[in-house]
Amino acid sequence: MVKGTVVSAKGFLAAGVACGIKKSGKPDLALLVCPKGATAAAMFTTNRVVSAAVTVCRENTAARKVYGVVINSGNANTCTGTKGMADARTMCRALAGELKVGAGEIFLASTGIIGHSLPIDKIRAGLPVAVKRLSDSPKAGMDFTRAIMTTDTRPKTAVRTIRLNGKIVTIAGTTKGAGMIGPNMATTICVLTTDAAVSKLLLGKALQKAIGLSLNRLTVDGHQSTNDTAMILASGAAGIPLIGKSGASYRAFERSLCEVADDLARQMALDAEGATRMFRVEIEGAASPAEANKAARAVADYDLVKCAIHGGDPNWGRIICAIGSCGVRLNPDRLTCWIGGVCVFRNGQPTRFDARRVSRIIRQKEHVIRVRLGAGKAADFCYGCDLGYGYVEINAEYHT
Amino acid sequence: MVKGTVVSAKGFLAAGVACGIKKSGKPDLALLVCPKGATAAAMFTTNRVVSAAVTVCRENTAARKVYGVVINSGNANTCTGTKGMADARTMCRALAGELKVGAGEIFLASTGIIGHSLPIDKIRAGLPVAVKRLSDSPKAGMDFTRAIMTTDTRPKTAVRTIRLNGKIVTIAGTTKGAGMIGPNMATTICVLTTDAAVSKLLLGKALQKAIGLSLNRLTVDGHQSTNDTAMILASGAAGIPLIGKSGASYRAFERSLCEVADDLARQMALDAEGATRMFRVEIEGAASPAEANKAARAVADYDLVKCAIHGGDPNWGRIICAIGSCGVRLNPDRLTCWIGGVCVFRNGQPTRFDARRVSRIIRQKEHVIRVRLGAGKAADFCYGCDLGYGYVEINAEYHT
Repeated sequence: MVKGTVVSAKGFLAAGVACGIKKSGKPDLALLVCPKGATAAAMFTTNRVVSAAVTVCRENTAARKVYGVVINSGNANTCTGTKGMADARTMCRALAGELKVGAGEIFLASTGIIGHSLPIDKIRAGLPVAVKRLSDSPKAGMDFTRAIMTTDTRPKTAVRTIRLNGKIVTIAGTTKGAGMIGPNMATTICVLTTDAAVSKLLLGKALQKAIGLSLNRLTVDGHQSTNDTAMILASGAAGIPLIGKSGASYRAFERSLCEVADDLARQMALDAEGATRMFRVEIEGAASPAEANKAARAVADYDLVKCAIHGGDPNWGRIICAIGSCGVRLNPDRLTCWIGGVCVFRNGQPTRFDARRVSRIIRQKEHVIRVRLGAGKAADFCYGCDLGYGYVEINAEYHT
Repeated sequence: MVKGTVVSAKGFLAAGVACGIKKSGKPDLALLVCPKGATAAAMFTTNRVVSAAVTVCRENTAARKVYGVVINSGNANTCTGTKGMADARTMCRALAGELKVGAGEIFLASTGIIGHSLPIDKIRAGLPVAVKRLSDSPKAGMDFTRAIMTTDTRPKTAVRTIRLNGKIVTIAGTTKGAGMIGPNMATTICVLTTDAAVSKLLLGKALQKAIGLSLNRLTVDGHQSTNDTAMILASGAAGIPLIGKSGASYRAFERSLCEVADDLARQMALDAEGATRMFRVEIEGAASPAEANKAARAVADYDLVKCAIHGGDPNWGRIICAIGSCGVRLNPDRLTCWIGGVCVFRNGQPTRFDARRVSRIIRQKEHVIRVRLGAGKAADFCYGCDLGYGYVEINAEYHT
């Protein structure tokens, strides 16, 4: 059932191994290599406390070409002081040494527990093993994905192909979930690849757009990680001319990238810690785009709404309560709410609806909550998921 | 084990009956009466969507004297349109008629499900029954408390007495919990009584201070209800001279009122939906008082911190993550965190500590999380509670 991986785009090799960071023995070290060098861009968490990996990777976004990506799971390398910074640089140097490139030409990311020193010797020992296994096979691509997973129960990958200048261009991606997901910036670790040739400037612009409309519009618990990193590498191996300006080719590329990122965001929502279903909150009639965004997020983040959805209950009062308390302007006499197209609250007044039908809508894998604020013309959306026992179980019984 | 109720203060009568709003048959209609009239003040939710009860009670805060309070549980009378407003006024008129006072001299509150019309006939029928049972007995006081409860598992009352001008002055209060509690304003329904004589101006000032340091610094789920109401009635029956200026008498009164409110807030935290323990977050070294408040609340509201506390796990990384992402200024090299007095993270670096000892501290009924931001001199605090399976159970299996 492998539909594609990060090596579906030409010009990339991947590997994933278990180097011993995770006590479970599961894969925890992932490599992605572009032997001829890729144009690359990245986005990072806006948390004021960040992983040493984020600090170093941010520096390396200045590189003209990126030749490799090294990611470890099981340890975030965050709040680890000066040793953490040294370890992050060691990770880059180790891969750069294997590839005979500069340490500044490597991207990196870490994910896992905060505040524990990275077992750098294990990474140093595992890295040459992973390098030997580098391959462009679907299996290698899935090994990469499995090695970046933490509490995910399923690997997440997405692929789109488009025809540009008579050639097939592939855009692929993978991401890990599954908790500590808030929509401020480049949530979690997301690695995107393409064999299109795209200028660094436009690649960064497309990444911002795609992540902005997908991972940044997904909230699991409103928590923003210290390690969020989204990156894209363009190998140019498809053989199309460089996409260097915002024309039709760029728009087609951007659209496909947005689809890949949206697909990944939905997979994350459905595999969020303890989640059994997801929903999309659509706000309209907001006084400003910022308020539309705030209201959408407020509903998606509201624990009582999330619990009601877990229970399949059409408790629209909690949606209205979330809207009312989030600080956005609204017209109480125009305030209207629909669940799956069924109006449940109209112009500030309760309205009759078939509660059993709406309950069935909510119990679907995905449904839409739409709210009209009646205060203006701005609109926005946010993805969310239900809050189930599993979230508490995973996060209360996880021990440091 | 009744240590006191709202009628512990002289000059008040109370009652609580089941009028049939709650399907369970539990008490759902509460009356408090001050036959000679009380000076009164109230604070309300800042949610933009409010109960009709809040709208009407807010109007009635203009009254010079308040003679009665009528509260129903089981139905919030929120999002109920024009019928809701008429019902709220009917509640006031019905009690005013029994007491032979003006409808504007009544305070009211509603709590329960949003978006369902109030069964006003049941309230109209139950009200004279409750009036007949009005009494200053401890049992009547407890009946009042039980009739305002929703998902609370325990009644919550607190009483303090002070000696002023050679006379005993009593300050008493009750509150209901237990979910949808965020610290923006006068959380939940809280009724305070005193037999001191206090000017309306100073009574309002003391209420703001007391609620500000207690219920407004408690978060269960960060949710602000549409019905939050805190009120205080002063009967003057203790026979002391009017407290009309900010002297020693006022300060003694305010201090005791703060103690009562703090006591009630702690009871609410420990009886929050699904909670098994509570904690106090203390922030120091913030760049401004607003940022100290924001950081304290961010930690207390952080689901991952709350889950870790439920599991008894000293996961300080989640505390630091909450602080880093809440948007306050901090100095990463000075950032320090203590749990129950044990330093777990010092000056931006991990530090050795006895994890089993800290786990024991967290498993206590109450513990303190202290964080130094290193960005200034402001400090603040917030109360929170753990996030357990019970919260999900109560809120996913509650059906509208």
